[in-house]
Amino acid sequence: MIQYKLIYFDVRGLGEVSRQLFHLAGCEFEDVKIPRNDEQAWLELKKSTPFGQLPILKILDAESQNEIEIPQSSAIGRYLANQFGYAGKTPEEKAMVDAVIDQFKDFLVSQKRLTLAVRTKKSEEEINRVKEDIVTPAKDTYFKILKKLLENNSSGFLVGNDITWADLQISDNLTTLDGLGIFVPSEEPILAKFHEKIMNTPSLKTYFEQRPASLL
Amino acid sequence: MIQYKLIYFDVRGLGEVSRQLFHLAGCEFEDVKIPRNDEQAWLELKKSTPFGQLPILKILDAESQNEIEIPQSSAIGRYLANQFGYAGKTPEEKAMVDAVIDQFKDFLVSQKRLTLAVRTKKSEEEINRVKEDIVTPAKDTYFKILKKLLENNSSGFLVGNDITWADLQISDNLTTLDGLGIFVPSEEPILAKFHEKIMNTPSLKTYFEQRPASLL
Repeated sequence: MIQYKLIYFDVRGLGEVSRQLFHLAGCEFEDVKIPRNDEQAWLELKKSTPFGQLPILKILDAESQNEIEIPQSSAIGRYLANQFGYAGKTPEEKAMVDAVIDQFKDFLVSQKRLTLAVRTKKSEEEINRVKEDIVTPAKDTYFKILKKLLENNSSGFLVGNDITWADLQISDNLTTLDGLGIFVPSEEPILAKFHEKIMNTPSLKTYFEQRPASLL
Repeated sequence: MIQYKLIYFDVRGLGEVSRQLFHLAGCEFEDVKIPRNDEQAWLELKKSTPFGQLPILKILDAESQNEIEIPQSSAIGRYLANQFGYAGKTPEEKAMVDAVIDQFKDFLVSQKRLTLAVRTKKSEEEINRVKEDIVTPAKDTYFKILKKLLENNSSGFLVGNDITWADLQISDNLTTLDGLGIFVPSEEPILAKFHEKIMNTPSLKTYFEQRPASLL
């Protein structure tokens, strides 16, 4: 039997899609959350992580006691999505799912400039400058790509006919962007409809309702 | 029969690993290179690309005339690596290969700050500031991870016993960092040995010798 342990901070952030994949697949896992403000706990753990970062996924084969650790959020997400059948149905669909994830990660570079400014309590003027000069143009490009994918796909999902981890990742990011005031659902009906669809995924609804609130 | 067309600029950059994968696999492809300084040609092409970016991979099934376009360099690289058998041997190896690629892409965010400063002809003082304050600390973290992987793997490759597209990507980036003065082979013997090993891959040697020189 395989035992999974996901280790991340106590926010959605880069760990959330993997958590959702476990819930979507109905697969048990240990959801270890390191308090974001407990720097000591993190610095202690950091030494033993493969790349000095979180999330990591530990995969233990209980019979052989063989343990593998996978670092990097997208590598973990893709691994789980492939294991559970949410990576895309064909090699070409998988590549398109990967391309959407890469596009999200490109956008995340800009988003991080804003979340860093918020977290380090920069002035309102500086936060607004980052929003207007960096995040808004990046968001416009990113949203345009997402809307094109949704408009060209009658299933309501980003790629193919069924939910993939790209849908989870983009939807989760829309939740974050909503909280940051970057995604305004009433101004983006196509994205709002998509977001609502994913948030109403039957096997995830209870999880979404019960998880602790988190801006990021 | 499947016909591949890779479209990118006339530099190594984000297209090079896919080119190398075709050569490594001995698979024919059309290597379309858009001149970096021909802005008109690029703006014209940009409109018809899926995400407004290069590289893109066009996959044409000559029989059915069905054509698929894949955007995003890593999505293309992973797709080709999976097709040709250079993505890792097991799901867990594939995840580690993906994690290395993600680590490279994290570093690339910092590297881009430098290449942008060089390309937009910033002052020497500004270029040195970006090198010292942004690229060098990011490079230290990145190199530490790569060296740990190489030290823990007796094959000389980053993951598993055979060459993967992660080896190609990291080695190609070391070529770039060498040219930028960020990677000094004599100071990094582990990485220098790895770089030399990949550059001497029998099925790639002729390609490396014959390709046009490119800083980036």
